[in-house]
Amino acid sequence: MIWNTNLRWRLPIACLLLEVALIALFGVFVRYEMDADPHWLEEKVIKNLSTDLENEFYYRYPSFQDVHVMIFVGFGFLMTFLQRYGYSSVGFNFLLAAFGIQWALLMQGWLQSFDGRYILVNLENLINADFCVGSVCVAFGAVLGKVSPVQLLVMTLFQVTLFSINEYILLNLLEVKDSGGSMTIHAFGAYFGLTVAWILYRPNLHHSKERQSSTYYSDLFAMIGTLFLWMYWPSFNSAISNHGDAQHRAVINTYCSLAACVLTSVALSSALHRKGKLDMVHIQNATLAGGVGLGTVAELMVLPFGSLIIGFICGIVSTLGFVYLTPFLESRLRIQDTCGVHNLHGIPGIIGGIAGAVTASIANIDLYGEEGLAYTFGIERSKLNWSPNTQGRFQAAGLFVSLAMALVGGIIVGVILRLPFWGQAPDENCFEDAVYWEIPKEPKSTALHSEDSSIKPSEP
Amino acid sequence: MIWNTNLRWRLPIACLLLEVALIALFGVFVRYEMDADPHWLEEKVIKNLSTDLENEFYYRYPSFQDVHVMIFVGFGFLMTFLQRYGYSSVGFNFLLAAFGIQWALLMQGWLQSFDGRYILVNLENLINADFCVGSVCVAFGAVLGKVSPVQLLVMTLFQVTLFSINEYILLNLLEVKDSGGSMTIHAFGAYFGLTVAWILYRPNLHHSKERQSSTYYSDLFAMIGTLFLWMYWPSFNSAISNHGDAQHRAVINTYCSLAACVLTSVALSSALHRKGKLDMVHIQNATLAGGVGLGTVAELMVLPFGSLIIGFICGIVSTLGFVYLTPFLESRLRIQDTCGVHNLHGIPGIIGGIAGAVTASIANIDLYGEEGLAYTFGIERSKLNWSPNTQGRFQAAGLFVSLAMALVGGIIVGVILRLPFWGQAPDENCFEDAVYWEIPKEPKSTALHSEDSSIKPSEP
Amino acid sequence: MIWNTNLRWRLPIACLLLEVALIALFGVFVRYEMDADPHWLEEKVIKNLSTDLENEFYYRYPSFQDVHVMIFVGFGFLMTFLQRYGYSSVGFNFLLAAFGIQWALLMQGWLQSFDGRYILVNLENLINADFCVGSVCVAFGAVLGKVSPVQLLVMTLFQVTLFSINEYILLNLLEVKDSGGSMTIHAFGAYFGLTVAWILYRPNLHHSKERQSSTYYSDLFAMIGTLFLWMYWPSFNSAISNHGDAQHRAVINTYCSLAACVLTSVALSSALHRKGKLDMVHIQNATLAGGVGLGTVAELMVLPFGSLIIGFICGIVSTLGFVYLTPFLESRLRIQDTCGVHNLHGIPGIIGGIAGAVTASIANIDLYGEEGLAYTFGIERSKLNWSPNTQGRFQAAGLFVSLAMALVGGIIVGVILRLPFWGQAPDENCFEDAVYWEIPKEPKSTALHSEDSSIKPSEP
Repeated sequence: MIWNTNLRWRLPIACLLLEVALIALFGVFVRYEMDADPHWLEEKVIKNLSTDLENEFYYRYPSFQDVHVMIFVGFGFLMTFLQRYGYSSVGFNFLLAAFGIQWALLMQGWLQSFDGRYILVNLENLINADFCVGSVCVAFGAVLGKVSPVQLLVMTLFQVTLFSINEYILLNLLEVKDSGGSMTIHAFGAYFGLTVAWILYRPNLHHSKERQSSTYYSDLFAMIGTLFLWMYWPSFNSAISNHGDAQHRAVINTYCSLAACVLTSVALSSALHRKGKLDMVHIQNATLAGGVGLGTVAELMVLPFGSLIIGFICGIVSTLGFVYLTPFLESRLRIQDTCGVHNLHGIPGIIGGIAGAVTASIANIDLYGEEGLAYTFGIERSKLNWSPNTQGRFQAAGLFVSLAMALVGGIIVGVILRLPFWGQAPDENCFEDAVYWEIPKEPKSTALHSEDSSIKPSEP
Repeated sequence: MIWNTNLRWRLPIACLLLEVALIALFGVFVRYEMDADPHWLEEKVIKNLSTDLENEFYYRYPSFQDVHVMIFVGFGFLMTFLQRYGYSSVGFNFLLAAFGIQWALLMQGWLQSFDGRYILVNLENLINADFCVGSVCVAFGAVLGKVSPVQLLVMTLFQVTLFSINEYILLNLLEVKDSGGSMTIHAFGAYFGLTVAWILYRPNLHHSKERQSSTYYSDLFAMIGTLFLWMYWPSFNSAISNHGDAQHRAVINTYCSLAACVLTSVALSSALHRKGKLDMVHIQNATLAGGVGLGTVAELMVLPFGSLIIGFICGIVSTLGFVYLTPFLESRLRIQDTCGVHNLHGIPGIIGGIAGAVTASIANIDLYGEEGLAYTFGIERSKLNWSPNTQGRFQAAGLFVSLAMALVGGIIVGVILRLPFWGQAPDENCFEDAVYWEIPKEPKSTALHSEDSSIKPSEP
Repeated sequence: MIWNTNLRWRLPIACLLLEVALIALFGVFVRYEMDADPHWLEEKVIKNLSTDLENEFYYRYPSFQDVHVMIFVGFGFLMTFLQRYGYSSVGFNFLLAAFGIQWALLMQGWLQSFDGRYILVNLENLINADFCVGSVCVAFGAVLGKVSPVQLLVMTLFQVTLFSINEYILLNLLEVKDSGGSMTIHAFGAYFGLTVAWILYRPNLHHSKERQSSTYYSDLFAMIGTLFLWMYWPSFNSAISNHGDAQHRAVINTYCSLAACVLTSVALSSALHRKGKLDMVHIQNATLAGGVGLGTVAELMVLPFGSLIIGFICGIVSTLGFVYLTPFLESRLRIQDTCGVHNLHGIPGIIGGIAGAVTASIANIDLYGEEGLAYTFGIERSKLNWSPNTQGRFQAAGLFVSLAMALVGGIIVGVILRLPFWGQAPDENCFEDAVYWEIPKEPKSTALHSEDSSIKPSEP
């Protein structure tokens, strides 16, 4: 079979059509929420707000920017570890995220911010759009190097749609807590991506085996991604939490969990190497699992040591996954998981979901106070026969719904992406920037900058 | 002609003299604004402020730090795409920006924060100084690789001065809206820089043609700059907007515009390549044009879909500019625009200025509310016969003033920079770090890190 | 002597044991402070707080995240300048910081946030933990490339302990001002690290001399660290200042000092090179000395021009130190200071301490206002016979205590680290990632990405 990877018309037309459609839909549907509208001046008088600071903007803006960095620099650079796929990692992540956030503003808007006529957006919508795209970035990690940018746009279109529906079911129907998205973002994104990768199985991928490894510098670039994800994860898990103590607590918990996770990732990485050496893949990825695992419980009363325990477990499980599970998935289940998203987002996401169910089911007035319990779980706006036990069971249900949606959705989207006209590369050209990018020629001189020999004398 | 690029005394003396002069002027003129002064405790009582949060600091600090990152990492790394000019891109940008912000604090201070005896500075002054320097960074992009650091200091000295005067004319005399600086920062900076580049035309630049291209890693470094600019642009366009809904709206608008811009940049980049491949130059630059184009209207009621349209157009125009206009400028107009600032800041800046004029002239009470209209355009503090139409005309006038100032100023500064004693390099040594930097020798071994062969056995 | 650098069991056991101990201690001791606890809802009513914004979280969160970036990306990447030690620089810094912040939460908690039964943590504790670890990162710079990760964990364990005690003496007993930690963080960290390096003197280090230099790209990676440290330093120096004008002033002062420091660093770097060329080492390090030097006085009334003067001096002294002092320390005092922490943190830290003593001793009511003076120096909560002069003398005493603690502590820890079983590398294998890391093989093809030759034809 001859593959045509020339995207000259497919990619431009896809981008332009999507953007024109988005503009039309935004024109019809999207307006500013009151706190981003000039009429807010009048609203302030009505609501008797004494200060501009009560604008939602000031509660969430720092977190929003941190999340934004995680999506674009964090995920983008995390995937630059491949030796010849840096442009695509950063560039395609940029493309799909830029498209995804616009589509997410619409999808999530219709389901959650629709006033009957307009979608009213404010900063919280932007954060949620970034979150939704985060789940696409996770899935991208599973198919990295094996799909064309057109396929990524198609995948994003469908995944954002499914994400929004799944999120609506969890948050609005099941009323689960999942402020950092262990279930909605990470588990959903990972299993969706893995299912797609499974459908898109490439039997001759060993032909591009050499390019699946890293180089010295590509690993350093990837650490930029790792660290920005790691550092800003407290913002991720607290960005849409309730104001005040909930945001505060989510930050403390995530900070603790991530710190513990680094130590166990390092421990396992060394223990599993015959000479005790560390493996960059583990340091780049498993150290982040603690943030994923904390996603559901971040604002709940896990206490700092509970967070440490979750981080401890996630670091171990994730590193073990990289060493034993990823090869198993590829050889036995024919799931080629380029970035090991199963180890970083899949299992830790499930751990997070389970931790959420357990933590919710042991909630009580001693721990939260009466008001605190009501506020944390939003009881006042819900049915009166609420109990921690029910909440725990709904949390567990939320996890199953997410996994089911991911599997079913992944199969459908995978089948669509198998169609032969999306410009995908043949197996032997996977993980190669040159397929879709104009690549600069390397400079001829070997001793590039050494000495001034190439500089003509400038002094008499 | 023999060029002497040894800066041993010229650069140190320039730096030290400038810094001593700055210290003297700061000593005479600069004091803290009340909200950064210990007397603020008394001020709070007088103003009946109930909380420390009413300190301007808390409204603007997150945006300030983001803008700071854009100036130093954003612009600095964006220009590292050249294969042998990374040190200079980051390092000279660092130098000129560090000098420029100090001089801008004084110049902008005298014109806008002078109480008759002292310049009173607070966080807003720091943001404005960063903005002013942003315009110098833009101009730096036009002359990148062709000027010495001494020339850059001289250029910064003059450009900051001109910027401050132009800004004063626009904001204080014409009372235009330009919170993100489409006109004052981008259009002014670009056309100033292009005019300087035109005066400094180098006929034999083809001798260093090879070094004008990128390498694989230099392009990845440049993407760090691109992404930090892209992600933090919402902070840039909202940093000095009015409190509350205006800042909030500016963020939403910029977020939308930039997202749309990515899709059209990718579309055009692929469509204009004979094999449909993407060009890193476009992804690094044109994707940012949407932020430039939104600079004037960011806090106005363009509505989200209006922002998308501006981003849509800017991405297309900017990419077309890189493909068709930059070669034309060089061959026909003898303007050697190293970074293509004309495409990223010049045309999108003009588009932004025009969009501002149009958006202002259609402002009305339906859209803004009575109070909102007065607050947005600062009508109460201005003459009573204000009308949207007048505002629109003043906006247009502001654009022309900026362009005129840039051209006239650029010619004067260009002529000064042509003087032969600034340590500039000859044409064949342009775009080369080794002229001004001590460069490390490349390691001898070709197989640098492969295997442990270079490590002596450490185990028995 | 045969060195065994195989860490297979030592590193994992150290990490796991430490983490298990931390979890146990956290379980017994650490709980949320009221403003991160669900009971805050009730607290708000009691304290009559009208808004969630009065939660400490909103005062400090942006600064916290910036400090977090400085510790992990700033310090981590700053040290990647070594050609074959990038993984270790970033990775070991990551490991020691992740361990250190947990241990610091406990140590600092017991000494400063202990309510008799529990350590109550909130965001301020997280910032202080990051600060404490910052001092370990400084010390890491002195021993970089010459110690194993197990040694680093041991060093961190002891240094965090000593730091917390020293900090307690300075802040609680001597009641000195040191919001940005010139004395507690920088001077302490630097002289502690230098003392350790002195004890761990390696006579045959010239065998790995070649690897002590940088490469073109490793220097660019290091600039990422430099710039994030430089840009976010205003957050560092203001993060735990008093609310309101003090935080605001600390930002302005640090911004000014750092800007001045860049100019004098560049000036001296060029003046001290025979051809007037700039040295990346100076640009990467000396430009930051202004932030260190401002650490003690940041929130005091130094006035902007005072900040410029401190930055001016620090840039000069630091660059001179790199050129003259570092070689002297190595050849005469047998102190091998890999990163030159003496020039960046040692001397500027002392300058900062002295500046603090002077600035405090000239404090007066004219400058601060009556209330401002009391609030700034916390007089109301202290003995009544306070005078600026006393404060100045206590500030000076604080500096001496820090230096004494660093020297004594450094000797003890150095001796412990000399024990032969920590997995340290022999002199000829220093500065080499391959000792502790699995290193990817470099790709065989020299012309890596040039042309599409390696891509099979995909078009008919």
